[in-house]
This record gives sequence, C-alpha cells and structure tokens, in this order.
Amino acid sequence: MKEEGVKQNCSSELRQDIITGDWVVIATGRAKRPEDFSKAERIKDNSEIESCIFENPEKTGQVEDVLIYETKEGEWTLRVFPNKYPAFTQNQNHCVSPEEGPYFAMPGIGFHEVIVTRDHYKSLAHLENLEVAEVLDAYQERYLDLMKNKKVNFIGIFHNYGKEAGASISHPHSQLMAIPVVSPYLELELYGAENYFRQNRHCVYCVMAEYEHNTKKRVVFENENFIAFCPFASRAAFEIWVMPKKHSPYFERITIEEKIKAAEVLQKSLNSIFKALNDPAYNFYIHTSPCDGKDYPHFHWHIEILPHTATWAGFELETGIEISTIQPEIAAEYLRKML
Amino acid sequence: MKEEGVKQNCSSELRQDIITGDWVVIATGRAKRPEDFSKAERIKDNSEIESCIFENPEKTGQVEDVLIYETKEGEWTLRVFPNKYPAFTQNQNHCVSPEEGPYFAMPGIGFHEVIVTRDHYKSLAHLENLEVAEVLDAYQERYLDLMKNKKVNFIGIFHNYGKEAGASISHPHSQLMAIPVVSPYLELELYGAENYFRQNRHCVYCVMAEYEHNTKKRVVFENENFIAFCPFASRAAFEIWVMPKKHSPYFERITIEEKIKAAEVLQKSLNSIFKALNDPAYNFYIHTSPCDGKDYPHFHWHIEILPHTATWAGFELETGIEISTIQPEIAAEYLRKML
Repeated sequence: MKEEGVKQNCSSELRQDIITGDWVVIATGRAKRPEDFSKAERIKDNSEIESCIFENPEKTGQVEDVLIYETKEGEWTLRVFPNKYPAFTQNQNHCVSPEEGPYFAMPGIGFHEVIVTRDHYKSLAHLENLEVAEVLDAYQERYLDLMKNKKVNFIGIFHNYGKEAGASISHPHSQLMAIPVVSPYLELELYGAENYFRQNRHCVYCVMAEYEHNTKKRVVFENENFIAFCPFASRAAFEIWVMPKKHSPYFERITIEEKIKAAEVLQKSLNSIFKALNDPAYNFYIHTSPCDGKDYPHFHWHIEILPHTATWAGFELETGIEISTIQPEIAAEYLRKML
Repeated sequence: MKEEGVKQNCSSELRQDIITGDWVVIATGRAKRPEDFSKAERIKDNSEIESCIFENPEKTGQVEDVLIYETKEGEWTLRVFPNKYPAFTQNQNHCVSPEEGPYFAMPGIGFHEVIVTRDHYKSLAHLENLEVAEVLDAYQERYLDLMKNKKVNFIGIFHNYGKEAGASISHPHSQLMAIPVVSPYLELELYGAENYFRQNRHCVYCVMAEYEHNTKKRVVFENENFIAFCPFASRAAFEIWVMPKKHSPYFERITIEEKIKAAEVLQKSLNSIFKALNDPAYNFYIHTSPCDGKDYPHFHWHIEILPHTATWAGFELETGIEISTIQPEIAAEYLRKML
C-alpha cells in the first residue's frame, strides 16, 4: 500500500476535482492557523424583529403563502411564498426577442420562492434536529410541486446566511428557483459523474463518500445515512459537503427517515462552522439531478456548504481556479473539535 | 430584416453566452437606475504612502525585481517582482504525493509576480495613455519570458482594485501567475471558439466585435484597433470587454502601435467605470491562448473588466448562472456619457 496523504508543510499544491477535472490551489505559504480564520469579523445585521418583513409578512404586504407548516395550536413554524423581487417569474412571453444579431435570449420564466423558518434569531445551526428536517421537508415538497411544470427543467435550492454571503434580510431563510435551463455547474458534474462511471464502473460520489468514511481525516461528522466532509479539492477554506451514503441521484426522493438523518448532519456541520469561524457568513445549496424528464443514474445528490472565508479576486474570476489557504484535512480536524 | 433588440421593460430574461453556452439572468424587476449603482460605497483604503511596501520595496524587505522600467534620470516608473506570499513557487517537487486514494494532486510549481506602477494614488483609470501602454508592455515582456519555461502552460494576468475586489494593498498593482495547468474558464472559451468556428467558419469574437461596432448600442469606446463594449450576456452589471478588432489569438504578439491603442481603450473604459460608479472596486484580466506549445487559431484574446457591483450568493455559486440587475445596453449608454 502506498504512502497515503499529502505532507502538511507543502507551501503550494494543485488539487484536482475528480468530478469536473477542475483545479484548486492549496497555498499554505500564506497559511494561517485554523483559529485565525475566525478573526474575519462578519458585518452583523442587527435589524429589529419589529421591522422584519419575514416576521410579519401579512403586515408588510407579502403575497400569499404557497406552503405553510403550523403547530397544532395554529402557530406557523415555516412558510414559503414568492420572492418579492423575483429573478424568475411567470407570464412574460412577450418581453424578449429570442435573437439579436448573433446572440440568443429567452424569457426568464420560472419560479422564485422564499422558505422562512419561524425564529428571527435562530439560524439552522441552532435549530433542533426536527426543525431542520422540516426545512428539508419544505424543500422537497416545493420541489415535487414545481417539477411538474413543463417549463421547469432545473430547481436550485440555496441558503444565504449573512450580508457578505448575499443575504439582504437577516431573518433566516432559504430560496428556491425553478427555471427552464440546467445550471452549467451541474452540467459539469453530471458529465463528470457519467464519464467517471464509464471509466470506473462506480459512482464517483460513492467512491468519495466511502474513501472519506474509511480514512476519517476529512470527515466532520457522520451518521448511519449521511457523511459530512471537507472535500479533498475544497473551493473555499472550511468548505463542507453533506452527502447520502447510499447512491441516490434525486434529492426529491428522500424519505422521512433520511431527512431526519440528513438534518442531523447538516445542522452539526453548520454548527461546527459557526463555532470554528465565529458566526461566519456562508452559503449552502443542494446539487441534485435536473427535472427535465431525463434519467441521471450516475449522479449523486449532495449539499455543498461554502463559508465566506475569502474574496474571490482577479485570478479566481479569470480562471475558475480557487485559491484556499488551509488544507481541508486541517480544517476538518478543527471543525471536529467544535462538535 | 427582423426587429432587432430586446425590449427594455422585460422584468427577467435569460441571455446565453454564445462562446461557452452558459446563461446569465438580466432581472430588471429588481432594477435600479444606472446612477443608483454608484451608491454602493466602496471601503476606501487610506493607507499611508510611507508604510506602503510597494512604494519602498527596498525598505520593506522585498526581494529583487525581475523587471524595472526607469526614466532617463534613473527614477523607476514600473517594477515587477515575485509576490511575497506566492500561490505558486519553484522547487517544491518533494512536497506533494501525486495520489491519495481516488484523488490527484500536483505541486503548485510556477511563478507569481507583482507589477507595480509608480504613483501610489493614481490607478490605471487616471494614468496617461503611454503609462498604461507601459503596463501592457510589462505584461507582454514578463509573458514572453515566463512562457519559455517548460512547466508553464498557462499565464494569468489580472488586476485587483479595491478591497472588495481582493486587493490587499492599495498601491496600484497587477499580478501574474504562470502555472502548469490551463484555466478551466479559458478551456470553456477555447472549446466554444473552436466549436463556433466549425459550425460558422468565423471566429465568434470577431463576429461579436463587428456586430457591436455596427450596432453601437453596447459600445463604450472604440478606436481604430480596439473596441470596448458591455457584453450581451454580461456576468456583472457594467462589465466591459476590451477586444482587438483584428483576429488575434495571442496577447503576447501585440505590437507597439497596438499597445498604445489598447491602452487608450482600457484607460477610457476604466475611467468611465470610475465616474459612473464613483470609484468602485473592480477586477480585470486578460484571456489569451495557453502557452502549452499548441496552436489556438480560433481563439481571440481580450480583456474582461468586472466592476464589483454585486455579491455572488447561493444561486450564483450553486449554478454558475449570474444575475445582473441592469441591461448591458443601459449600462453602456450610461458609461458613454462619462467619457
């Protein structure tokens, strides 16, 4: 058996994403200790609960809910409604000329919804297991409803936390966009997963999940059904992927039991980031197969969590090669200590 | 002749990048007037000239210059030296195990240099034409030198201006990374350009430059040799591309006359952004063919300028589909007024 592992004092290494073939740089010559990443003080939004439009949607003129979960006493615990400033909407067929000279455009027909949890001050990192499972439940319910629409071929589900991560309202919320085109990033992963399967007769995500489970060093937390780990080719410092251990291309087919297990791993992951980086801004999103009527047997749905630990500057924007300044092994070790 | 142009009151449209096939969203339902974009107050760095390590590299322990331009009187006007915290360096063959389980890595062998202009307070937007040409001259000279290295297959040249755009030092400077792998973004463009040529027998960039020159509406500025325009499928509000009008795959083959013409268009573009957005942070970078010994006859080098007008949040990070809130036609019209 060959010597495993990458030496920790290497000042710069290129790591390849085995799914997409893309590269990242781990440049530890600029290194900080894991605890130094928490110093990047986040701009906290101290907006008042009284003026929060998610707290009192009826007062602030919000349109009708498309989904609402309530307690037995009739108190809402989660609600979903259309985004007030949608990036995609219905009925705008007449707006766009499909062609202009050599170019091509189409109307941004789709759905853009907001998924809001009850507590103004409690992020997902601090909710109970069943409360996080309820959020996943809402994602699934809206997904299953919207995928029926013939013009919807892809549904993006994401969560922005903190201003630097693009959250313009501090009340915890996720968003969902159901759109006619498939995400280019997802297409790279779909292509990569199929290509890997052709060459190796295995799902590349299953291979990763199993390898990480066996070696443990990049694992943040795992239970029977899900594993959270810092990917070998992390795009950002302290990035975490949450992945089902069982091969599964379609998030929307998740079972109740799996939702509870996924919620535990997601909550622990977010909580470890919260503690390790002192309440950083972050984004997470679900990568799942398109809903365009085709089968994607070799894809494997997962959640990617990207803490806002660096600014992507000219090199990253130019090349798509992200530079991270901490090894994922060190980041994972530190995150595990937070649990 | 069909009706040209996209209606301006459309609240959301998907526009396709005809080079890569990627999509952007222009969501003007969230629209602001062009002048409103300038309100995003930039965090200005008021660092003192005395403590600037680029102002006095000899005092602050900077290593030796690899290139220096001087006046007849022996005063330096531009200098190039290795980055003190390099993302890529020489001689680290022993650091990285190339394999770990299913993964693959390689040493980050390469060069990472900084290109510094003389004036601490004057950005490229405010330099004279010949001073900007001198910067392009330095890019070219370093490119021609570094591309000789057998391990260098790609050279990224970029400029970060302002903290939000990743500039950690306020003294105006560009950077250059000469690395063993080709940028994934460039590969998408190379593939797209070749594919377009096979289908249409034309360079896709030449087609764009000619169409923009003829229709004028997205042009910011042009002269005999170069054109600056807001791309039809802009990734960011007020994005500008600067492109040679003559087909040319290799930046490093630019002539003296062309450098002066390119400098004029680049400077006017940056100056229009400076005025329109009230001194915003921005990145620009050069997309040119790899230097891996292969020919890229269908590529066409160009500069992309990305003002920091929005935060890429969960949806953009998840999908690679960027959302912009102003039509490039409106942005270009406003930028032209600044000249």
